[in-house]
Amino acid sequence: MEASAEPLGELARRLQERCLADGLSVATAESCTGGLVGHILTEVPGSSGYYRGGIVSYADQAKVELLDVPVATLEAHGAVSAQVALAMAQGVRHRLHSDLAVAVTGIAGPGGGSDAKPVGLTYVAVADAAGEVVRRHLWSGNRAANKREAAATAIGLLLERLGEGSGE
Amino acid sequence: MEASAEPLGELARRLQERCLADGLSVATAESCTGGLVGHILTEVPGSSGYYRGGIVSYADQAKVELLDVPVATLEAHGAVSAQVALAMAQGVRHRLHSDLAVAVTGIAGPGGGSDAKPVGLTYVAVADAAGEVVRRHLWSGNRAANKREAAATAIGLLLERLGEGSGE
Repeated sequence: MEASAEPLGELARRLQERCLADGLSVATAESCTGGLVGHILTEVPGSSGYYRGGIVSYADQAKVELLDVPVATLEAHGAVSAQVALAMAQGVRHRLHSDLAVAVTGIAGPGGGSDAKPVGLTYVAVADAAGEVVRRHLWSGNRAANKREAAATAIGLLLERLGEGSGE
Repeated sequence: MEASAEPLGELARRLQERCLADGLSVATAESCTGGLVGHILTEVPGSSGYYRGGIVSYADQAKVELLDVPVATLEAHGAVSAQVALAMAQGVRHRLHSDLAVAVTGIAGPGGGSDAKPVGLTYVAVADAAGEVVRRHLWSGNRAANKREAAATAIGLLLERLGEGSGE
Protein backbone atom coordinates (compact mmCIF):
# COMPACT_ATOMS: atom_id res chain seq x y z
CA MET A 1 0.00 0.00 0.00
CA GLU A 2 1.03 3.63 -0.26
CA ALA A 3 3.10 4.90 2.62
CA SER A 4 0.55 7.63 3.08
CA ALA A 5 -2.26 5.11 3.60
CA GLU A 6 -0.61 4.09 6.87
CA PRO A 7 -1.46 6.38 9.79
CA LEU A 8 1.22 9.01 10.37
CA GLY A 9 1.72 7.99 13.98
CA GLU A 10 2.29 4.38 13.02
CA LEU A 11 4.94 5.38 10.47
CA ALA A 12 6.69 7.42 13.16
CA ARG A 13 6.57 4.54 15.64
CA ARG A 14 8.09 2.16 13.08
CA LEU A 15 10.85 4.64 12.23
CA GLN A 16 11.67 5.20 15.90
CA GLU A 17 11.77 1.49 16.68
CA ARG A 18 14.15 0.84 13.80
CA CYS A 19 16.42 3.81 14.52
CA LEU A 20 16.68 3.03 18.23
CA ALA A 21 17.45 -0.62 17.45
CA ASP A 22 20.17 0.34 14.97
CA GLY A 23 21.52 3.38 16.86
CA LEU A 24 20.68 5.78 14.03
CA SER A 25 19.78 9.47 14.36
CA VAL A 26 17.45 11.51 12.15
CA ALA A 27 17.14 15.20 11.24
CA THR A 28 14.50 17.02 9.19
CA ALA A 29 14.51 19.96 6.78
CA GLU A 30 11.01 21.20 6.06
CA SER A 31 9.67 23.82 3.76
CA CYS A 32 6.01 23.31 2.78
CA THR A 33 5.28 20.97 5.69
CA GLY A 34 6.31 23.75 8.08
CA GLY A 35 7.30 21.48 10.96
CA LEU A 36 4.69 18.76 10.57
CA VAL A 37 7.25 15.98 10.08
CA GLY A 38 9.05 16.94 13.29
CA HIS A 39 5.74 17.23 15.11
CA ILE A 40 4.70 13.72 14.05
CA LEU A 41 8.04 12.18 14.97
CA THR A 42 7.94 13.83 18.41
CA GLU A 43 4.42 12.65 19.20
CA VAL A 44 5.97 9.28 20.01
CA PRO A 45 7.36 9.03 23.56
CA GLY A 46 11.11 8.45 23.51
CA SER A 47 11.67 10.23 20.19
CA SER A 48 14.50 12.24 21.72
CA GLY A 49 16.48 8.98 21.63
CA TYR A 50 16.97 9.29 17.86
CA TYR A 51 15.43 12.56 16.55
CA ARG A 52 18.02 15.33 16.73
CA GLY A 53 15.79 18.12 15.42
CA GLY A 54 15.27 20.06 12.26
CA ILE A 55 15.15 23.27 10.35
CA VAL A 56 11.96 24.76 8.98
CA SER A 57 13.26 26.73 6.03
CA TYR A 58 10.14 28.54 4.95
CA ALA A 59 12.04 31.58 3.65
CA ASP A 60 14.69 31.06 0.96
CA GLN A 61 17.14 32.92 3.18
CA ALA A 62 16.78 30.14 5.73
CA LYS A 63 17.52 27.54 3.06
CA VAL A 64 20.74 29.35 2.21
CA GLU A 65 21.96 30.40 5.65
CA LEU A 66 20.78 27.50 7.80
CA LEU A 67 20.88 24.61 5.31
CA ASP A 68 23.75 25.71 3.06
CA VAL A 69 21.64 25.46 -0.11
CA PRO A 70 23.72 27.28 -2.78
CA VAL A 71 22.12 30.50 -4.03
CA ALA A 72 23.02 29.40 -7.55
CA THR A 73 21.00 26.20 -7.10
CA LEU A 74 17.98 28.16 -5.86
CA GLU A 75 18.24 30.61 -8.74
CA ALA A 76 18.76 27.95 -11.40
CA HIS A 77 16.07 25.49 -10.31
CA GLY A 78 13.76 27.29 -7.89
CA ALA A 79 12.99 26.44 -4.26
CA VAL A 80 10.65 23.62 -5.32
CA SER A 81 13.04 21.38 -7.21
CA ALA A 82 14.85 18.08 -6.89
CA GLN A 83 18.16 19.92 -6.63
CA VAL A 84 17.05 22.05 -3.69
CA ALA A 85 15.45 19.08 -1.91
CA LEU A 86 18.74 17.19 -2.15
CA ALA A 87 20.74 20.18 -0.93
CA MET A 88 18.35 20.66 2.00
CA ALA A 89 18.71 17.00 3.03
CA GLN A 90 22.48 17.13 2.79
CA GLY A 91 22.56 20.46 4.60
CA VAL A 92 20.47 19.44 7.59
CA ARG A 93 22.29 16.12 7.89
CA HIS A 94 25.54 18.06 8.16
CA ARG A 95 24.21 20.77 10.48
CA LEU A 96 22.58 18.34 12.89
CA HIS A 97 25.24 15.62 12.66
CA SER A 98 22.60 12.96 11.98
CA ASP A 99 22.91 9.59 10.30
CA LEU A 100 19.79 10.14 8.20
CA ALA A 101 18.12 13.32 7.03
CA VAL A 102 14.90 13.98 5.15
CA ALA A 103 13.89 17.15 3.31
CA VAL A 104 10.56 18.32 1.91
CA THR A 105 9.98 21.24 -0.45
CA GLY A 106 6.73 21.81 -2.29
CA ILE A 107 3.76 24.01 -3.04
CA ALA A 108 1.03 23.26 -0.52
CA GLY A 109 -1.41 25.74 -2.05
CA PRO A 110 -3.85 27.22 -2.63
CA GLY A 111 -1.55 29.98 -3.95
CA GLY A 112 1.97 29.80 -5.33
CA GLY A 113 1.37 27.46 -8.24
CA SER A 114 2.23 27.96 -11.92
CA ASP A 115 1.93 25.96 -15.15
CA ALA A 116 5.44 24.64 -14.71
CA LYS A 117 5.11 24.09 -10.96
CA PRO A 118 1.49 23.49 -10.01
CA VAL A 119 0.02 23.39 -6.51
CA GLY A 120 0.74 19.99 -4.99
CA LEU A 121 4.16 19.58 -6.61
CA THR A 122 6.52 18.34 -3.92
CA TYR A 123 10.02 16.91 -3.76
CA VAL A 124 11.10 14.65 -0.91
CA ALA A 125 14.76 13.75 -0.45
CA VAL A 126 16.67 11.54 1.97
CA ALA A 127 20.42 11.68 2.61
CA ASP A 128 22.57 9.24 4.54
CA ALA A 129 26.17 8.06 4.60
CA ALA A 130 25.65 6.03 1.43
CA GLY A 131 24.29 8.91 -0.63
CA GLU A 132 20.89 10.39 -1.32
CA VAL A 133 17.63 9.86 -3.15
CA VAL A 134 14.93 12.30 -4.25
CA ARG A 135 11.36 11.72 -5.43
CA ARG A 136 8.90 13.97 -7.25
CA HIS A 137 5.23 13.94 -6.25
CA LEU A 138 2.13 15.78 -7.38
CA TRP A 139 -0.77 15.80 -4.95
CA SER A 140 -4.25 17.09 -5.60
CA GLY A 141 -5.59 17.76 -2.12
CA ASN A 142 -6.07 21.01 -0.28
CA ARG A 143 -3.28 22.66 1.70
CA ALA A 144 -3.74 20.57 4.84
CA ALA A 145 -4.03 17.30 2.89
CA ASN A 146 -0.97 18.07 0.76
CA LYS A 147 1.07 18.75 3.89
CA ARG A 148 0.02 15.43 5.40
CA GLU A 149 0.76 13.52 2.17
CA ALA A 150 4.21 15.11 2.10
CA ALA A 151 4.90 14.27 5.74
CA ALA A 152 3.79 10.66 5.32
CA THR A 153 5.92 10.30 2.22
CA ALA A 154 8.94 11.79 4.00
CA ILE A 155 8.73 9.31 6.86
CA GLY A 156 7.99 6.52 4.38
CA LEU A 157 11.11 7.37 2.39
CA LEU A 158 13.23 7.21 5.55
CA LEU A 159 11.78 3.76 6.27
CA GLU A 160 12.40 2.66 2.69
CA ARG A 161 16.00 3.84 2.90
CA LEU A 162 16.37 1.67 5.98
CA GLY A 163 15.11 -1.33 4.04
CA GLU A 164 11.73 -1.27 5.74
CA GLY A 165 8.70 -1.81 3.56
CA SER A 166 5.73 0.50 3.70
CA GLY A 167 3.52 -1.96 5.53
CA GLU A 168 2.74 -4.25 2.58
CA MET B 1 -10.35 33.07 28.39
CA GLU B 2 -7.12 31.11 28.27
CA ALA B 3 -5.22 31.40 25.02
CA SER B 4 -5.30 27.62 24.80
CA ALA B 5 -9.10 27.56 24.89
CA GLU B 6 -9.12 29.22 21.47
CA PRO B 7 -8.64 26.78 18.59
CA LEU B 8 -5.03 26.63 17.44
CA GLY B 9 -5.94 27.49 13.87
CA GLU B 10 -7.82 30.60 14.96
CA LEU B 11 -4.84 31.81 16.97
CA ALA B 12 -2.63 31.32 13.91
CA ARG B 13 -5.06 33.21 11.67
CA ARG B 14 -5.15 36.14 14.08
CA LEU B 15 -1.37 36.24 14.31
CA GLN B 16 -0.99 36.14 10.54
CA GLU B 17 -3.55 38.90 9.99
CA ARG B 18 -1.82 41.16 12.48
CA CYS B 19 1.71 40.46 11.21
CA LEU B 20 0.77 40.95 7.56
CA ALA B 21 -1.01 44.21 8.43
CA ASP B 22 2.00 45.50 10.36
CA GLY B 23 4.71 44.07 8.10
CA LEU B 24 6.18 41.91 10.87
CA SER B 25 7.97 38.59 10.46
CA VAL B 26 8.04 35.64 12.88
CA ALA B 27 10.45 32.78 13.61
CA THR B 28 10.11 29.79 15.94
CA ALA B 29 12.50 27.80 18.12
CA GLU B 30 10.94 24.58 19.32
CA SER B 31 12.13 21.89 21.63
CA CYS B 32 9.31 19.86 23.23
CA THR B 33 6.72 20.88 20.61
CA GLY B 34 8.97 19.39 17.92
CA GLY B 35 7.68 21.54 15.07
CA LEU B 36 4.02 21.81 16.05
CA VAL B 37 4.06 25.62 16.30
CA GLY B 38 5.48 25.93 12.78
CA HIS B 39 3.00 23.35 11.52
CA ILE B 40 0.07 25.28 12.94
CA LEU B 41 1.27 28.62 11.59
CA THR B 42 1.74 27.12 8.12
CA GLU B 43 -1.71 25.55 7.99
CA VAL B 44 -3.00 29.04 7.16
CA PRO B 45 -2.74 29.92 3.44
CA GLY B 46 -0.43 32.88 2.91
CA SER B 47 1.70 32.17 5.99
CA SER B 48 4.86 32.50 3.89
CA GLY B 49 4.08 36.24 3.89
CA TYR B 50 5.28 36.59 7.47
CA TYR B 51 6.58 33.23 8.81
CA ARG B 52 10.29 32.94 8.04
CA GLY B 53 10.80 29.47 9.50
CA GLY B 54 12.21 27.89 12.59
CA ILE B 55 14.61 25.57 14.28
CA VAL B 56 13.55 22.40 16.06
CA SER B 57 16.30 22.01 18.62
CA TYR B 58 15.47 18.65 20.07
CA ALA B 59 19.09 17.79 20.85
CA ASP B 60 21.08 20.13 23.09
CA GLN B 61 23.75 20.28 20.40
CA ALA B 62 21.19 21.93 18.13
CA LYS B 63 20.40 24.50 20.81
CA VAL B 64 24.07 25.40 21.01
CA GLU B 65 25.11 25.24 17.36
CA LEU B 66 21.94 26.43 15.62
CA LEU B 67 20.46 28.77 18.24
CA ASP B 68 23.63 30.05 19.92
CA VAL B 69 22.47 29.01 23.38
CA PRO B 70 25.61 29.25 25.55
CA VAL B 71 26.84 25.89 26.83
CA ALA B 72 27.32 27.52 30.25
CA THR B 73 23.63 28.48 30.31
CA LEU B 74 22.59 24.93 29.47
CA GLU B 75 24.89 23.49 32.11
CA ALA B 76 23.90 25.97 34.82
CA HIS B 77 20.13 25.89 34.35
CA GLY B 78 19.28 22.84 32.21
CA ALA B 79 17.56 22.71 28.82
CA VAL B 80 14.15 23.27 30.41
CA SER B 81 14.67 26.67 32.04
CA ALA B 82 13.70 30.29 31.63
CA GLN B 83 17.27 31.16 30.73
CA VAL B 84 17.45 28.65 27.88
CA ALA B 85 14.00 29.63 26.58
CA LEU B 86 15.13 33.27 26.40
CA ALA B 87 18.38 32.35 24.68
CA MET B 88 16.50 30.19 22.16
CA ALA B 89 14.12 33.05 21.30
CA GLN B 90 16.97 35.53 20.91
CA GLY B 91 18.99 33.01 18.92
CA VAL B 92 16.30 32.15 16.39
CA ARG B 93 15.33 35.81 16.00
CA HIS B 94 18.93 36.57 15.08
CA ARG B 95 19.44 33.52 12.85
CA LEU B 96 16.22 34.04 10.90
CA HIS B 97 16.32 37.85 10.87
CA SER B 98 12.75 38.07 12.14
CA ASP B 99 10.96 40.86 13.96
CA LEU B 100 9.43 38.48 16.49
CA ALA B 101 10.57 35.10 17.72
CA VAL B 102 9.02 32.56 20.05
CA ALA B 103 10.71 29.66 21.81
CA VAL B 104 9.36 26.64 23.65
CA THR B 105 11.28 24.26 25.88
CA GLY B 106 9.63 21.76 28.19
CA ILE B 107 9.10 18.20 29.27
CA ALA B 108 6.22 16.74 27.27
CA GLY B 109 6.37 13.37 29.03
CA PRO B 110 5.72 10.66 29.88
CA GLY B 111 9.45 10.28 30.66
CA GLY B 112 12.09 12.88 31.44
CA GLY B 113 10.55 14.39 34.56
CA SER B 114 12.10 14.82 37.99
CA ASP B 115 11.08 16.29 41.35
CA ALA B 116 12.63 19.62 40.45
CA LYS B 117 11.41 19.56 36.85
CA PRO B 118 8.25 17.48 36.54
CA VAL B 119 6.55 16.34 33.34
CA GLY B 120 4.52 19.23 31.95
CA LEU B 121 6.98 21.94 33.01
CA THR B 122 7.39 24.28 30.04
CA TYR B 123 8.94 27.68 29.42
CA VAL B 124 7.71 29.89 26.58
CA ALA B 125 9.66 33.00 25.59
CA VAL B 126 9.15 35.75 23.03
CA ALA B 127 11.83 38.15 21.79
CA ASP B 128 11.41 41.26 19.69
CA ALA B 129 13.19 44.55 19.12
CA ALA B 130 11.96 45.89 22.46
CA GLY B 131 13.26 42.99 24.54
CA GLU B 132 11.94 39.65 25.66
CA VAL B 133 9.53 37.95 28.02
CA VAL B 134 9.41 34.42 29.39
CA ARG B 135 6.66 32.50 31.18
CA ARG B 136 6.70 29.31 33.21
CA HIS B 137 3.87 26.80 32.83
CA LEU B 138 3.08 23.42 34.32
CA TRP B 139 0.60 21.29 32.41
CA SER B 140 -0.92 18.03 33.53
CA GLY B 141 -1.99 16.41 30.28
CA ASN B 142 -0.44 13.57 28.34
CA ARG B 143 2.36 14.11 25.84
CA ALA B 144 0.10 15.15 22.95
CA ALA B 145 -2.00 17.47 25.12
CA ASN B 146 1.07 19.11 26.68
CA LYS B 147 2.50 19.78 23.21
CA ARG B 148 -0.76 21.41 22.13
CA GLU B 149 -0.98 23.53 25.29
CA ALA B 150 2.58 24.69 24.72
CA ALA B 151 1.90 25.55 21.07
CA ALA B 152 -1.26 27.49 21.89
CA THR B 153 0.55 29.37 24.63
CA ALA B 154 3.43 30.22 22.28
CA ILE B 155 1.13 31.70 19.65
CA GLY B 156 -0.88 33.42 22.38
CA LEU B 157 2.26 35.04 23.79
CA LEU B 158 3.16 36.38 20.35
CA LEU B 159 -0.32 37.90 20.09
CA GLU B 160 -0.04 39.34 23.58
CA ARG B 161 3.31 40.90 22.71
CA LEU B 162 1.60 42.54 19.75
CA GLY B 163 -1.01 44.04 22.06
CA GLU B 164 -3.67 41.57 20.95
CA GLY B 165 -5.85 40.07 23.64
CA SER B 166 -6.43 36.37 23.85
CA GLY B 167 -10.00 36.56 22.64
CA GLU B 168 -11.56 37.94 25.80
